[in-house]
Amino acid sequence: MDPRVERHAELIVDQCTEIDEGDNVIVQSGPEAEDLNVALFEKIGERGGMPTRMTLGGRAMRSFIQAVDLDAVTPPEHLVGLLEAADVLINVRAASNVAETSDVPPESMQAFAQIMEPIQEHIENEDTEWVLTQHPAPGNAQKAEMSTDGYTDFVYDAIDQDWDAQEEHQEQLVEILDPASEVRVVAGEQTDISMSIEGNPAVNSVADKNLPSGEVFTAPIPESVEGTVRFDMPVIQHGREVEGAYLEFENGEVVDHEAEANEDVLTGILGTDDGARRLGELGIGMNRDIDCFTANMLFDEKMGDTVHMAIGRSIKESVGEENPKNESAIHLDMILDMSEDSFIEVDGEVVQRDGTFVFEDGFED
Amino acid sequence: MDPRVERHAELIVDQCTEIDEGDNVIVQSGPEAEDLNVALFEKIGERGGMPTRMTLGGRAMRSFIQAVDLDAVTPPEHLVGLLEAADVLINVRAASNVAETSDVPPESMQAFAQIMEPIQEHIENEDTEWVLTQHPAPGNAQKAEMSTDGYTDFVYDAIDQDWDAQEEHQEQLVEILDPASEVRVVAGEQTDISMSIEGNPAVNSVADKNLPSGEVFTAPIPESVEGTVRFDMPVIQHGREVEGAYLEFENGEVVDHEAEANEDVLTGILGTDDGARRLGELGIGMNRDIDCFTANMLFDEKMGDTVHMAIGRSIKESVGEENPKNESAIHLDMILDMSEDSFIEVDGEVVQRDGTFVFEDGFED
Repeated sequence: MDPRVERHAELIVDQCTEIDEGDNVIVQSGPEAEDLNVALFEKIGERGGMPTRMTLGGRAMRSFIQAVDLDAVTPPEHLVGLLEAADVLINVRAASNVAETSDVPPESMQAFAQIMEPIQEHIENEDTEWVLTQHPAPGNAQKAEMSTDGYTDFVYDAIDQDWDAQEEHQEQLVEILDPASEVRVVAGEQTDISMSIEGNPAVNSVADKNLPSGEVFTAPIPESVEGTVRFDMPVIQHGREVEGAYLEFENGEVVDHEAEANEDVLTGILGTDDGARRLGELGIGMNRDIDCFTANMLFDEKMGDTVHMAIGRSIKESVGEENPKNESAIHLDMILDMSEDSFIEVDGEVVQRDGTFVFEDGFED
Repeated sequence: MDPRVERHAELIVDQCTEIDEGDNVIVQSGPEAEDLNVALFEKIGERGGMPTRMTLGGRAMRSFIQAVDLDAVTPPEHLVGLLEAADVLINVRAASNVAETSDVPPESMQAFAQIMEPIQEHIENEDTEWVLTQHPAPGNAQKAEMSTDGYTDFVYDAIDQDWDAQEEHQEQLVEILDPASEVRVVAGEQTDISMSIEGNPAVNSVADKNLPSGEVFTAPIPESVEGTVRFDMPVIQHGREVEGAYLEFENGEVVDHEAEANEDVLTGILGTDDGARRLGELGIGMNRDIDCFTANMLFDEKMGDTVHMAIGRSIKESVGEENPKNESAIHLDMILDMSEDSFIEVDGEVVQRDGTFVFEDGFED
């Protein structure tokens, strides 16, 4: 086995989740992630945990969603039973075809997401430790327009880093955002958006819930978001790409939207529920070892010189105890390129210009 | 997709398990069974059930068992949680390598089986509907010494039959065994074994808990088994073959054993627990459409002109309410060829000679 697979498994069980004796562990992974699954079962066993493998998604889930009467089904109780007794959930992405659900009508995907929402909420609320990671598979390499072996190098380079040094670097931004009230993001001619983050923690995300990681994120106060934003990178939802998504916010809600391609998909996403028309996350990518877009949000949103905003559900740890939390069946990240013609303002002070932070060499106020 | 895969899925959800609206279904299947898994998710969805895929066994389970301290682990609570809320369990076998656990020490496999025993008991006792079936995979074809395509034909020929006609044929034997007390099986020079089945039902097994099926089975009263038996077909346990297993019973317990090859594996199996040294099942194969041995018990034990006996756990439905039930972490079937130099006696009457039943043409008393 590629020793990098073993190293990946070690980072997951020791750094991201800290598996201990007696831990009940779920490994959510498909057939494409067989090698990582084998390595995980070994490392989990060495630490005295008890693993069970579950597979969601892929071809089977597509055929289920196409066949079932979505009005008649309820959240699966046996899956709830599995999760209730689990201490750790390791979610491994790996696809032989990332377009596997591209022919499922968006409204069916949304209805299914709503059915599964209690499952998602359960994971976040029940003190289940979780991590989302990527095993390099041919479908993901193809989406990134890379060879499978080239993509494999890219993935492991991004995963196996000096996470302590990265945490220290990011802490400088956390210290700016944590006590702050107002954030304004300006880029190009169409993006000028402001929001309050008062009382919401800025999370220093290194190898923890995402692997790779390398971002600082927080949650906007849902009703505070005002302005417009044009996203630079395509938003991929269930294998379909929304290009050039544009959103206009008033009192925190999307009041207008358009897209350069597949606008109907964006319309469908925004129609999922009330929370899908509000921002749930503001994130700032700070991982300069991720050096190209691969059409995979787990990596893209961590890239240096980018900002991302997610519509839908907020991550629990980024919401202050006294503050409202945006709820939704979805959480969809969208990315802005901040490398030129852009700045981030915090409480009226510019803290990043054209991708360079105030605490970095080369910053000019 | 091969239309036989779709037909297989239909038989599983309609005939073996009768999936209805709201049923929580577990599909236990590995990467090799991807096509059947996709077809099952579709059929389950059409009937309003909710499927979850779980994978046990294979490479990952081997690496877990090799790594973990088996003295320190307990039955996985999250798996119990999943099973407790499940209505139906569909267990699909398919291997790319049937020898995947051949390098795990037999005592580790036994210890693991004991840890998992509560899971197995739960399935049998909690009114969970279950079925065990086979998807044709290259490893199973290789074990059968067949091409993958030839094996695929063999599997679907065995599965897609006129099960009503088969049931009628088998009912003739059920009518003999159901009211009977004593069964004696004699074959060759080394097999002469007697047991009481008084009060234990004879089960007419067609497409229900096994697919394919085609056998009539019951349970011996555990303490009643007396005599000797030499099994003709190799017994395969975790990828290792015990050839020519021989058992001698006194007061229902194995008091002597030997084997022509891999006797240590047999010794290990018999040492699992007390129930592993007693018979849990007497079965009579009646499916003449299974016309060759494929080193796969799911098929071999159903073959016409054979008898099988299992050491270990009895199947619940074959034990009368007033009667003792043999319990064990294992259930291991072993096969006798009855095609020549053999007979079965029920309450002193010969009911099968050289493979031909009393109710068939060609029987000579």
